[in-house]
Amino acid sequence: MKFFQVKSVEETFQLINENITPLSEKVSKPLFEALHFVLAEDIEVKENVPNFRRSSVDGYAVKAADTFGSSESMPGFLNLIGEVKMGETPSRMIQMGEAMYVPTGGMLPEGSDSVIMIEHCEDISGLLNVYRQIAPNENVIAIGEDLRRGNVLLSKGTKLRPQELGALASQGIIEVAVFRKPIIGYLSSGDEIMPMETEALELGQVRDMNGITIGSQVAQWGMTFLYGGVVKDDQAELERRVRDMIEKVDCLVLSGGSSVGTKDYSVDVIQSLGDPGVYVHGISIKPGKPTILSNANGKPVIGLPGHPASAMIIFHLFGKAILDRLQGMELEEKQLTFARVTKNIPSAPGRTDFVRVRLFEKDQEWYAEPILGKSGLISTLVKSEGMIEISSENEGVYKGDLVPIRLFQ
Amino acid sequence: MKFFQVKSVEETFQLINENITPLSEKVSKPLFEALHFVLAEDIEVKENVPNFRRSSVDGYAVKAADTFGSSESMPGFLNLIGEVKMGETPSRMIQMGEAMYVPTGGMLPEGSDSVIMIEHCEDISGLLNVYRQIAPNENVIAIGEDLRRGNVLLSKGTKLRPQELGALASQGIIEVAVFRKPIIGYLSSGDEIMPMETEALELGQVRDMNGITIGSQVAQWGMTFLYGGVVKDDQAELERRVRDMIEKVDCLVLSGGSSVGTKDYSVDVIQSLGDPGVYVHGISIKPGKPTILSNANGKPVIGLPGHPASAMIIFHLFGKAILDRLQGMELEEKQLTFARVTKNIPSAPGRTDFVRVRLFEKDQEWYAEPILGKSGLISTLVKSEGMIEISSENEGVYKGDLVPIRLFQ
Repeated sequence: MKFFQVKSVEETFQLINENITPLSEKVSKPLFEALHFVLAEDIEVKENVPNFRRSSVDGYAVKAADTFGSSESMPGFLNLIGEVKMGETPSRMIQMGEAMYVPTGGMLPEGSDSVIMIEHCEDISGLLNVYRQIAPNENVIAIGEDLRRGNVLLSKGTKLRPQELGALASQGIIEVAVFRKPIIGYLSSGDEIMPMETEALELGQVRDMNGITIGSQVAQWGMTFLYGGVVKDDQAELERRVRDMIEKVDCLVLSGGSSVGTKDYSVDVIQSLGDPGVYVHGISIKPGKPTILSNANGKPVIGLPGHPASAMIIFHLFGKAILDRLQGMELEEKQLTFARVTKNIPSAPGRTDFVRVRLFEKDQEWYAEPILGKSGLISTLVKSEGMIEISSENEGVYKGDLVPIRLFQ
Repeated sequence: MKFFQVKSVEETFQLINENITPLSEKVSKPLFEALHFVLAEDIEVKENVPNFRRSSVDGYAVKAADTFGSSESMPGFLNLIGEVKMGETPSRMIQMGEAMYVPTGGMLPEGSDSVIMIEHCEDISGLLNVYRQIAPNENVIAIGEDLRRGNVLLSKGTKLRPQELGALASQGIIEVAVFRKPIIGYLSSGDEIMPMETEALELGQVRDMNGITIGSQVAQWGMTFLYGGVVKDDQAELERRVRDMIEKVDCLVLSGGSSVGTKDYSVDVIQSLGDPGVYVHGISIKPGKPTILSNANGKPVIGLPGHPASAMIIFHLFGKAILDRLQGMELEEKQLTFARVTKNIPSAPGRTDFVRVRLFEKDQEWYAEPILGKSGLISTLVKSEGMIEISSENEGVYKGDLVPIRLFQ
């Protein structure tokens, strides 16, 4: 038997990255069936979003200069010349001294450069009293501010979450090229393991729990699971069943038989399936040390410890990474759950704020960078991996604060 | 129009809890189809797991007293009298001065009370040299230590994750009574909203992004989504479409039309669908303030803000809570991502430890209590909601430390 040095967690992820070749087969999926698939090509923004200057509030489109100097005590006065209808081009343009009502999401008329909120005005028989001054572009979403034509919308290798699908929909893209999802085969080995439907166990026997836990994890990640049942501890029989199963699947999971016991031949069976073969035999982790990872002619093989909890945790950590990589994703460790914020984020007391953040690692620490942009922009969600919650008791968080992150997905 | 006071996030969750009545209809599901369904009845442990004394290591079953005083320099000597086969009852019992080989997961012979690891012994022609002393019950999983007969295995209202399904499999339960999953209907309203397949937009128009983002979130949570398309801003038409849709579904989601604009009649339409009606109109949250929540004769109705990012975040927070409750789950805010550990957890440097934890709240802080028990026990996973990772650089974490939690699902 070949001896292996136990690998660290970091080395194991590194080796997974080197040993797993993504499935290259592409399939085309309508958006409503594309959730959690991985994009097989770059997609460019072909239309600006929005493709017109949009109001982000209910208010009046004006020339900002017309409001300069206006206040509660010294209101300005503008002629109200009509309203913009949702989904339509405004009927006319705005001249100096004029205002036009525009609802949230409505299009700004030509000549206007900002929108003053209805709360800050009063319509007195067609004469708009303006109680505040506003700046040019205030309450306006510029053309292409969410998605700009010519930019990369989504890169090949991106896993499609709800927000990515929304971004595709904004472009009128209703079908996408994605990588085929892998099919995962499973076999449980061990003389003591009985099928889960066994009614009465004899002493010394246990039912196969790993079939359903591993199968459910695979289902949870949106992949197909092929349950191959239980194999007795017999090298010839195990070889036959394993060879039969690996022909039908993209990745094979074996449960049990991976500890250094006297009957341990599963590493030999796994090694015999193809080259380059076993690259991890033993990980310095608790639980789950006796884990085997192999590459059999391009198909990943995972030998899990037989204990149900160890098997599930190992599969959660390394099985997920292997299957992500097999689907064409770059491996990134983004399951962390807190980070330092990169700048002060003020927040009004009495209101719970959810600030979208992008996460990055620097000098072995994780940082959360607030994604700026108006709250209605889908691109802010595409860029973000989670949210910081600033509770209603707080006036904000300070640069450098360690804060919890709610991860999307 | 009835006026509502804006509610806090906490009040909103409270009101959801009070206003949502779980669907009571039960269905029976085989385990491989039961993932993420909610249990409709309590399930009791009917068989001890394990149902025999199991070794947790590869080693030799002995009487612990026979090893007392043994050390590297002063080894003890025991007669090796055979081996235990996996899945079988040992062929004979152990007398004082005897040892029998037992593999991990094997059954202890009568007369033995502990297992000494192979690393700490040497078999010299049938005479076992013992280099360490061990305590009674060392390396032994007792009968019922994982699951004890008569205890509650899983309570009604539990969402079935992979680990719960594994626990059911351990009992030979292959089909369970769960609550039916809700069907979610969706309509988008607004004169500017065009179906996502629209090829060329006119100025002022946008494509419906919320249909796919909300639909994908629903799919991600394992529920059925019924897409009802886009409705123009016309009260009579909206009423007709909404009434038609709510007949077919368990929960209705309306996107758009919830800001306090001039065309805002969606709150009236929602109110007209049934009693007790709207219980939240406006939440003190950013983004997503203009959210409407209603209870129409027992069916939840959710009026989302039209902006895609706001809609998705609100649905992530409150839509998920409503749908969880509708499925019979108790509402709990367990999405937090860090907590204080309740006791010191030592860890060996050079090894990454994953410690399972249960989370609880006390005096507005979250605590992570390590779940103790041998790493192979499925019950430790059933009890835990996540894991603390102790990196290989650290020698452990101290009581009171604030640590990141990797949540299961």
